[in-house]
Amino acid sequence: MLNVSVIGASGYGGGEVVRLLLGHPEAHLRHLVAETRVGEPFAEVFPNVRGFIDGRTEPLDPAAVAADSDVVFLALPNGVAMSLVPQLDDRVRVVDLAADFRFRGAPAYERWYKTPHIAEALLEEAAYGLPELHRAEIRRARIVGNPGCYPTAALLAIAPLLRSGLARPTAIVIDAKSGVSGAGRAASSRTHFSEVNENVFAYSTPGHRHSGEIEEELRLLAGEVSFTFTPHLIPMTRGILATVYLQPARAVTREAAEAAFREAYGGEPFVRVLDGESLPQTKATLGSNFCDVAVRVDPQSGTIIAFAAIDNLVKGAAGQAVQNMNLMCGFPEELGLRVPGLFP
Amino acid sequence: MLNVSVIGASGYGGGEVVRLLLGHPEAHLRHLVAETRVGEPFAEVFPNVRGFIDGRTEPLDPAAVAADSDVVFLALPNGVAMSLVPQLDDRVRVVDLAADFRFRGAPAYERWYKTPHIAEALLEEAAYGLPELHRAEIRRARIVGNPGCYPTAALLAIAPLLRSGLARPTAIVIDAKSGVSGAGRAASSRTHFSEVNENVFAYSTPGHRHSGEIEEELRLLAGEVSFTFTPHLIPMTRGILATVYLQPARAVTREAAEAAFREAYGGEPFVRVLDGESLPQTKATLGSNFCDVAVRVDPQSGTIIAFAAIDNLVKGAAGQAVQNMNLMCGFPEELGLRVPGLFP
Amino acid sequence: MLNVSVIGASGYGGGEVVRLLLGHPEAHLRHLVAETRVGEPFAEVFPNVRGFIDGRTEPLDPAAVAADSDVVFLALPNGVAMSLVPQLDDRVRVVDLAADFRFRGAPAYERWYKTPHIAEALLEEAAYGLPELHRAEIRRARIVGNPGCYPTAALLAIAPLLRSGLARPTAIVIDAKSGVSGAGRAASSRTHFSEVNENVFAYSTPGHRHSGEIEEELRLLAGEVSFTFTPHLIPMTRGILATVYLQPARAVTREAAEAAFREAYGGEPFVRVLDGESLPQTKATLGSNFCDVAVRVDPQSGTIIAFAAIDNLVKGAAGQAVQNMNLMCGFPEELGLRVPGLFP
Amino acid sequence: MLNVSVIGASGYGGGEVVRLLLGHPEAHLRHLVAETRVGEPFAEVFPNVRGFIDGRTEPLDPAAVAADSDVVFLALPNGVAMSLVPQLDDRVRVVDLAADFRFRGAPAYERWYKTPHIAEALLEEAAYGLPELHRAEIRRARIVGNPGCYPTAALLAIAPLLRSGLARPTAIVIDAKSGVSGAGRAASSRTHFSEVNENVFAYSTPGHRHSGEIEEELRLLAGEVSFTFTPHLIPMTRGILATVYLQPARAVTREAAEAAFREAYGGEPFVRVLDGESLPQTKATLGSNFCDVAVRVDPQSGTIIAFAAIDNLVKGAAGQAVQNMNLMCGFPEELGLRVPGLFP
Repeated sequence: MLNVSVIGASGYGGGEVVRLLLGHPEAHLRHLVAETRVGEPFAEVFPNVRGFIDGRTEPLDPAAVAADSDVVFLALPNGVAMSLVPQLDDRVRVVDLAADFRFRGAPAYERWYKTPHIAEALLEEAAYGLPELHRAEIRRARIVGNPGCYPTAALLAIAPLLRSGLARPTAIVIDAKSGVSGAGRAASSRTHFSEVNENVFAYSTPGHRHSGEIEEELRLLAGEVSFTFTPHLIPMTRGILATVYLQPARAVTREAAEAAFREAYGGEPFVRVLDGESLPQTKATLGSNFCDVAVRVDPQSGTIIAFAAIDNLVKGAAGQAVQNMNLMCGFPEELGLRVPGLFP
Repeated sequence: MLNVSVIGASGYGGGEVVRLLLGHPEAHLRHLVAETRVGEPFAEVFPNVRGFIDGRTEPLDPAAVAADSDVVFLALPNGVAMSLVPQLDDRVRVVDLAADFRFRGAPAYERWYKTPHIAEALLEEAAYGLPELHRAEIRRARIVGNPGCYPTAALLAIAPLLRSGLARPTAIVIDAKSGVSGAGRAASSRTHFSEVNENVFAYSTPGHRHSGEIEEELRLLAGEVSFTFTPHLIPMTRGILATVYLQPARAVTREAAEAAFREAYGGEPFVRVLDGESLPQTKATLGSNFCDVAVRVDPQSGTIIAFAAIDNLVKGAAGQAVQNMNLMCGFPEELGLRVPGLFP
Repeated sequence: MLNVSVIGASGYGGGEVVRLLLGHPEAHLRHLVAETRVGEPFAEVFPNVRGFIDGRTEPLDPAAVAADSDVVFLALPNGVAMSLVPQLDDRVRVVDLAADFRFRGAPAYERWYKTPHIAEALLEEAAYGLPELHRAEIRRARIVGNPGCYPTAALLAIAPLLRSGLARPTAIVIDAKSGVSGAGRAASSRTHFSEVNENVFAYSTPGHRHSGEIEEELRLLAGEVSFTFTPHLIPMTRGILATVYLQPARAVTREAAEAAFREAYGGEPFVRVLDGESLPQTKATLGSNFCDVAVRVDPQSGTIIAFAAIDNLVKGAAGQAVQNMNLMCGFPEELGLRVPGLFP
Repeated sequence: MLNVSVIGASGYGGGEVVRLLLGHPEAHLRHLVAETRVGEPFAEVFPNVRGFIDGRTEPLDPAAVAADSDVVFLALPNGVAMSLVPQLDDRVRVVDLAADFRFRGAPAYERWYKTPHIAEALLEEAAYGLPELHRAEIRRARIVGNPGCYPTAALLAIAPLLRSGLARPTAIVIDAKSGVSGAGRAASSRTHFSEVNENVFAYSTPGHRHSGEIEEELRLLAGEVSFTFTPHLIPMTRGILATVYLQPARAVTREAAEAAFREAYGGEPFVRVLDGESLPQTKATLGSNFCDVAVRVDPQSGTIIAFAAIDNLVKGAAGQAVQNMNLMCGFPEELGLRVPGLFP
C-alpha cells in the first residue's frame, strides 16, 4: 500500500485522480492539497465522494507532503510544477498533469509556453507518459509528464499509420472536438453554460499549445513532419474525439490500415480497435480509461481518416496518470482502472 | 459465485444491470437475453463494455435461462414478467425491474396498469424492493418488485417526515424532474433530441402510473394519504430530482426535520443526508447507487421541502436491483456497489 | 420614431432588448451603454447582431443619454437603477429590468434586498410591469419596474385561480425550473457548463428574493396569502417553467379551471391558453414573448396544478420590457413583438 | 401577395419554412400539406406557431395545391419530389428542399442516391439554389434544388479560396459538425436524446450523399478536385460548423486569404466575414439566415483553414429556400429574412 497525495485536488483533473484512487487497491490517499477552496470539506468540493472522504482540503506544505508520500500527483496550472518538484524529496515519484515535464528539453517547452523552464535538469528523470508509445521509459522514470488530453487522442490515432509507413508524415490534419471540462474548473466566458451550450466553435487555432507535444512525438515517430491542429469546443462535459486526416504514402486499403491498428494495439489494455461498421463515440468511454480507435480510407481522395475517442478527464488526464503510476510502481498496468464506462 | 442472467439486456435498465454486475465479485454473467437486437454482439448494443463481454445477445428461452441461473433480472416492458416468471424454476431468484411485482395485490396493479394480473399467487412471494423501507422482507423474498425510479426518489424524501409525525399525510406535492433515459431506449418523439433538448415540460399528469406505488407505500407509512405527483422531463440523460412539499403537522424547525432524516438514514449505506447549506444535485450521484437527501422549512408558510436526488438508472433501477440481489442472496448489501459517481 | 437607449447592453437582458428593438418599427437605437466590455464593437459582444450594429459600447454618461433619448432601458445589477434614474431628465421614460422599481414601497424592497431604497419618491411614478395585471397603470407610468422572470411565470399561472375564487390563497406551492441564462452573463461556478450540464438542483430556497414580488402581487389579488417558492436550475440556456400547486376553495373541475384561464386571458396578445391534452413546454416559446399556460385538477387530491412556460429573456425580461414601452408610449402593444418562437 | 404552399409541413424543414413565411410580407400561406400527423391542428404539430395558424395539416392533393399556389415548397424525403413536381402545373414555381433537383444531370443523382431519376427533363428548368454561387440562374429558374445543409456550409467556406487560386483543388478536407435536427424529425436511435447527448461521433464516412453535391460544385469552381468529407453529430439541436482544410497553391498569408473572402462576400446580404480574432460560432447564427465565415493560415504547415457556421434549418434549409423564392419571384433578396439570430 502506497501513500499517495494529490496537489491541486480542487480542480477537475485532481478531483478525478482522487475518484480513481478511491478504487485503487494499492493506494492510500494521504494529502489532498488545494489551491482554491482550501479548508473546505472535500465532499463539498466534490460532492460525488461524500461518504468516502471526510477530511478537508489542505494548504500546500511541500515538506509535509514529501515526508509521508510515496507518489504525488500534481494537477496545477502550467509552470507551477517545475518550481514545486525540486521541493519534494527525490525519493518521491511524481506524475505531473500539466505541461512542465512533457518535453525532452527546455527549448521546446519555452517556445510553446513562453516562459523559461527552471528545472531543466529534472527533464532527464522524466518520461512522456503515453504508455502506448513509451512504456519502458515510464517504468524507469521518477517523474512522468502526463500528456495533454488532445495529444493523447491525436497521437493514438496517428501512431499506427506513421509507424507502419502507410501514411505520409506531412499535410496531416488533426480536427479535435472537446467537451468543456477540458477548459478546467475556473469560471470564464469560455466555460459559461449559456455561451457554449447549443454552440460549436474552434479556438486557439493555429498555435494551440498542445501542438508542441504533438510535434515532438510525431518527430520521434517519423522525423520531419507537418501537421495542423484545430481544437473545437462542443456542448458536452467530458470527451474528446480526434478526427485525423492523413495522406497515403502509397495506395492504402481500409484493411491494411485496420491491420496496422490491430498490430499496434493488439496487446494494449486500454486501446480498443473497433471492427465492423462502428466508429468511435466519446460516450462509449465516459468515465473510463479506454481510448476507442478506428480507421477508414476515402476511396475518392485516398485520404486516410483515423478516429480516437477518449474521456478527456480519464485517459486524457487522471486515468492515464494512474496508469503511469502503476507502471512506475511496478503494479499491473490495469490495477484499479479496468472499469467500463457509463452508457448512456 | 452465482450464475446471473439478464432478460431484457438491450434496454437501458438491463444494460445497466450488466455494467454493474461486471464489477460484482460474486456474480457470473450467464445469459444476456434481448427482445430487440437479438444476436448482435453485446459490445455493439452497449459499446461501453467492449473488451469485457465478447458474446452476443440471445433470444429468450426461459427453460435454458432457468436451468443455469441462480438469479434472473427482468428488465422488460410492464406486463411481461408476470407471464415469464411462472416459466422459470421456482428455485431461481427474480428481480423484476418493471411494475408486475411491485404491488401487494392484483387490484392496485390492475387499477393503475389497466390490465389483469395473471400471476397473483406469486405476489405473496414478492417484496417491494426499497431496502430502506423493506429490508427484512426483501431478505426473505424470492421475487423482488424493484421500485420505479420516481417512487424511489419520492419515498426516500417523504418517509422520514411521515414516520416522525412531523408532516401531515395530506396535501403532499411531489414535483419530480427526470432525465430522458427514464423513458427507455425505444425511439419516440418523447425521446427525440431536438424535441427535448432546451426544453422542459410536465407529462402524464395527473395520473402517472408511478402514483400507484407511491400511494401504496405512503398508506403503509401513514394510513390515509393525499398527494399529487407531477413528473417533468428535462434535458439531461440521467438523474431524477424529487422536490416534495409537505404541510407541517405542528410547528417544525429545520433542525427537527434534519434530525428526522439523520435518524432515518444514519445507518443506511446508500442514502446520504446533506448537512450544511448544500442541496442535492443529481450530478453528485451520476453513475452511483447513492440517494442524496436534504430538507428545509419555509419560515413564511411553514411548508416542509424535502429533496432527493438519484441516478434514475442506478438507485432508480439497476443499482437498486443489485442491492436487492445482495439482500436476497445474503451478500453484504454494498457488494459491488460502493463506488462514487462521476463529477463533473 | 423614438430614440431609445439601453444601459447595461453587454449583459443578456440588455442584449436581448437590443435584439428586439432592431425589429421594432418605431424605435431608433441611440446609446448602447455597457458596464463591462466598454468600447468593444457591439458585434463582438453580441455576435448575433453583426451586420446590424456597427458601433461600440459606450461608457455611462447619464446626461448624454438623457439628452437624446425618449426611452431608456436599464439592465443593471439590483440597486443601481435607483441611483441612476434621478440623474436622467424626468421627461425620459424608463423601463428598469432590475428590482429597484418593482415594489410599491421602500420597506418591501429593503426587506428582500437588504439595502436602503434611495429613490423612494420615484416609486410613486412607477408601475409593476406585468401588463396582464396592471395594464392601465403601466400606460400612465413614467417608470416601469419590469417583473422578474420567475414572478412573471408564477403570477400568470396563479392569477386566474385566485381572481376566480377557485383556489385558496394559502398553501400555494410554486416549483420553478429555469435555464441558466437567468443567472446572468457573469461567469461563476453556478453558470459553469460542467457544473450545470447533466444536473438539476434547487437553490436559494427558501427565501429567493423573487418571493418578495410574488408576495406583493398575490396580496393585491387575494389579501392574506401563504406560499412557498422553490427555483431550480436545469441544463438549458433559455426558458422557465413554473408548476404551481393550489388547494381548491371548493370542488373544482378541470373545465371550471380552464374556463377561468380562458376568461382571464381570452383577449391577451401574449398569453396562450393551451386546450386539449398539450401541456406548456418552454421550447414552444423560445425567442418569443409568449407565455403558454394550462391547468389540470388532480382527481385524487383535488389539487389544482397550473403551468406557465416562458422564455426567461423575452417575456421574462426584455420582451416584456418592450411590451411595457409600447404601453407607455401609446404604441400597439404587440408592435415589434408578434413573432413566433423557434421550434425545435 | 403570392399564394404559397408547403408540402411536408410536419417535418423540421417544412415547419421552418412556415415559420419564416409568417414573417414574409409578400407570402400568403395557402396549403400546409403533411405526410405524417395529417389532420392535426398545425399548432399541435408546431407549438411555436400557436396563435398564428388555426388550421390543420392537409393530406396531399397535388391538383388542389397547384390550383391555388404560386409557389410550392417541397420538404419531403429524397426521391418524392421528382414524382410530384410533374403533377403540379408548370406555372407553379417550386423550391425543393430534398436532393431531387440539386444535380445538373441524372447520372450524378443516381450515383449518389442509388435510384433512377424519373424527371430528368425537369432538371433543365432547375437551378442549384446557392445564391452566392448561382444567383443569376436561380432568378430565371422555375425549379430550385435547395442545397443540403452540409454543402451550403462547406461550399461557402471553400469557394473564395478556389476562385482566387489561393488553394489547390486537391487534398481538401471537410470536417463538419452538425446539430441533431439535421437528421430530421423521425425518431430513431440516431436522434435519441440519451444516445447523442454528451456524445460526438462521425457517421456515413466516407461516402455521405452530400459529397455528390459538393463534388459537382467544386468541379464547376476548379475542374478536377479531390476532397474528403466527414460529418459529425454533436449534442445540440441546430447549427453546422464546417472546418475546411486546404493546401496552399503558393505561399499564402492570412491577409491574402481574408481578402479573398471579403472580395467574394463583400456584397452578400447573408454571408458575414469575421474580422479580428473572432472565429465563427453556430450560436451567432441561431434562427437566422446568416453564414459566418473566417479563414486562417497555419504558419507551420501552410495549411489554410476556413470556417463556416450556419443554422442548418435556416441558411442550411428553409431560410435559403425563402431566399431562393425571393430571387425567383423578383422580390428583394432579404425580404422577410433580415432578422438577427438569438444569442445566447
